[in-house]
Amino acid sequence: MKINRHYLRLKESYLFSGIAKKIKEYSVKNPDRKIIRLGIGDVTLPLSRSVTDAMREAVSEMSSAETFRGYGEEQGYEFLRQAICGYYGKKGVTLSNDEVFVSDGAKSDLGNILDIFAKDNTVLIPDPVYPVYVDTNIMAGRQIVYMNGNADNGFLPMPDKNTKADIIYLCSPNNPTGAVYSKNQLEEWVCYALAKDAVILFDNAYEAFVRDEDLPSSIYQIDGAKKCAVEIGSLSKTAGFTGTRCGYTVVPQELIREGTALNSLWLRRQTTKFNGVPYIIQRGAEAVFTDEGQRQTREQVDYYLQNADIIAKTLTKLGIWHTGGQNSPYIWLRCPGGMSSWEFFDYLLKTANVAGTPGAGFGANGEGFFRLSAFGNKADVIQAMENFAQGLTGG
Amino acid sequence: MKINRHYLRLKESYLFSGIAKKIKEYSVKNPDRKIIRLGIGDVTLPLSRSVTDAMREAVSEMSSAETFRGYGEEQGYEFLRQAICGYYGKKGVTLSNDEVFVSDGAKSDLGNILDIFAKDNTVLIPDPVYPVYVDTNIMAGRQIVYMNGNADNGFLPMPDKNTKADIIYLCSPNNPTGAVYSKNQLEEWVCYALAKDAVILFDNAYEAFVRDEDLPSSIYQIDGAKKCAVEIGSLSKTAGFTGTRCGYTVVPQELIREGTALNSLWLRRQTTKFNGVPYIIQRGAEAVFTDEGQRQTREQVDYYLQNADIIAKTLTKLGIWHTGGQNSPYIWLRCPGGMSSWEFFDYLLKTANVAGTPGAGFGANGEGFFRLSAFGNKADVIQAMENFAQGLTGG
Repeated sequence: MKINRHYLRLKESYLFSGIAKKIKEYSVKNPDRKIIRLGIGDVTLPLSRSVTDAMREAVSEMSSAETFRGYGEEQGYEFLRQAICGYYGKKGVTLSNDEVFVSDGAKSDLGNILDIFAKDNTVLIPDPVYPVYVDTNIMAGRQIVYMNGNADNGFLPMPDKNTKADIIYLCSPNNPTGAVYSKNQLEEWVCYALAKDAVILFDNAYEAFVRDEDLPSSIYQIDGAKKCAVEIGSLSKTAGFTGTRCGYTVVPQELIREGTALNSLWLRRQTTKFNGVPYIIQRGAEAVFTDEGQRQTREQVDYYLQNADIIAKTLTKLGIWHTGGQNSPYIWLRCPGGMSSWEFFDYLLKTANVAGTPGAGFGANGEGFFRLSAFGNKADVIQAMENFAQGLTGG
Repeated sequence: MKINRHYLRLKESYLFSGIAKKIKEYSVKNPDRKIIRLGIGDVTLPLSRSVTDAMREAVSEMSSAETFRGYGEEQGYEFLRQAICGYYGKKGVTLSNDEVFVSDGAKSDLGNILDIFAKDNTVLIPDPVYPVYVDTNIMAGRQIVYMNGNADNGFLPMPDKNTKADIIYLCSPNNPTGAVYSKNQLEEWVCYALAKDAVILFDNAYEAFVRDEDLPSSIYQIDGAKKCAVEIGSLSKTAGFTGTRCGYTVVPQELIREGTALNSLWLRRQTTKFNGVPYIIQRGAEAVFTDEGQRQTREQVDYYLQNADIIAKTLTKLGIWHTGGQNSPYIWLRCPGGMSSWEFFDYLLKTANVAGTPGAGFGANGEGFFRLSAFGNKADVIQAMENFAQGLTGG
């Protein structure tokens, strides 16, 4: 019996465990201080009324033999796939139901989709990056090429025609940097992918935060993208589903490689290794896409966007370089005074009682940068920014 | 860009689509006849009161900021892992929480667990078999060796010391044959696996149907199994969760290969490519393991076992050779009169208005055999067996 030895090449991540340890130590020494957590990417607002009403109704259906539901289609119920197509329609993107696959979340799909590609592909990944892109490819033994995000390109790396790539990861609005690609920039990426016969895995988990109508909220708003991109969406940040688990992956029928429709490969993968999302959860997800659900969901996203704005405005006032904070729940800032990511973590904790996330945890290019998240309580965010400004200006 | 060409070697399965087509044709020709479906392996009884009450309560928690739950641990909430350990305790099996991984179902885990093993392993699979074992390994390009289930061994193939195997699939009570391994037989399998340094993937999805106390309902009831077996459980057939999606995989800490604990590899796989089961579903699953939940669940399983008994007794009376029907929801029978699997399908549909599953759909050794499932309505099962007996005896 041989294990998959690629797993042994994975680096242990001490990012979030390291943060937890430092917060704990600080709390023990300073029991009277309340720590404001702007680190984690988890939501805090409860599920909307539309969603919980729909789920209660679905629980009732499951409790009666007449309305009970057993196995559903692995790729999701028609009612939900139809609702997602309707949502895309409002973005000006036409999809058919069989191009939409309902899943238990973007993280699962981002990992599992790699199953349909050969090991012998070169993967292009931005740095800094959501670590799952890297780890899932190391597990499969694929060659990874990094592209640099930095202050010069606003953490929005662009394609280099001399770089070979078969699988390309893009995330916009980005985690961790909050940066958002423009339509022109995504057009360049689509051109590059088509020229290289590559496939873009477009992580669109933060699309609900895009409010600027000039910015793309789906890669399929770009001509030609259906021939080179898989898009992965999620209700985690859109509707507070981090603990409720529902997302979707779009694999257009036009996406053909080596004469084979990737849609048929993904369908085969999902019908073989997945048994669908719980009926109750799919009914909750459907409710997100109703008019009332959209209104309630938008309110939640607005709340987080206001937090982001408070953080971004404070940084601007303090003259601190940053990306994100608009059209995104994340703010990515250059640590003031030339501090390293972890030095700034300690500094922020001590001077402002605020816990954030050191940028170095997202890759080499993250060193000297720092991520703040807008998913907290508004009063806390205001307090955090006041503490921070006061500490920095000595006020 | 290269696709995973192993996918192109997968056979299209026309089993269930073929069945659906034949039923439809028959219904069109005979609109007045009610077809009794004893083919599919899906449950029909609603979720128990314990489960739906717990889920309603959890929906309420999700609707309030104070009790809302975001991301949970990928491997499942402590409360559920603890409940599963308690369930195993009653089987005389001691597990620690960190050996239990909550999942969205056995099918997902049976496919995904292969990620932690090298491609270069030989896989031993029984024939007839649940097709997922075969397809997931074809997708990964692994070499498959089949072991024969047949009437001589009661469809319970035993190890052959001359056969090399690294990964071994066992399912008991078995789908599709309903046959159940004895303790002595599983001891032989554990001995063989230990001698070969192999890992048994023990599909235990039907353990709740084992009522004979001499029969094992977990491979860990066999000495040494923790050193050579992963066990995959499910609430699908135990508690009617086919559309509610919750299962678990046990990877004992003692299970070490190439100096590496498989538990740590699986933890890494799950934390990287999975984000846990919905909180609401985990609360429903927890309720299955309470005393009242166990009582209600047992009632449901009893109902299906009574159906199985009705089918098995009819076959015995008619002198038709079969396995299963006790300690199992499936009955596997030799087609009477030397009919092929599909001939008998047509015969049964026409003479008794009963739809079952042709054994040939589960592998070459299934030809000439047929699967009936006990998951239907009791009155229907009684009617089906009366129709069948009458047709066969010309009564």
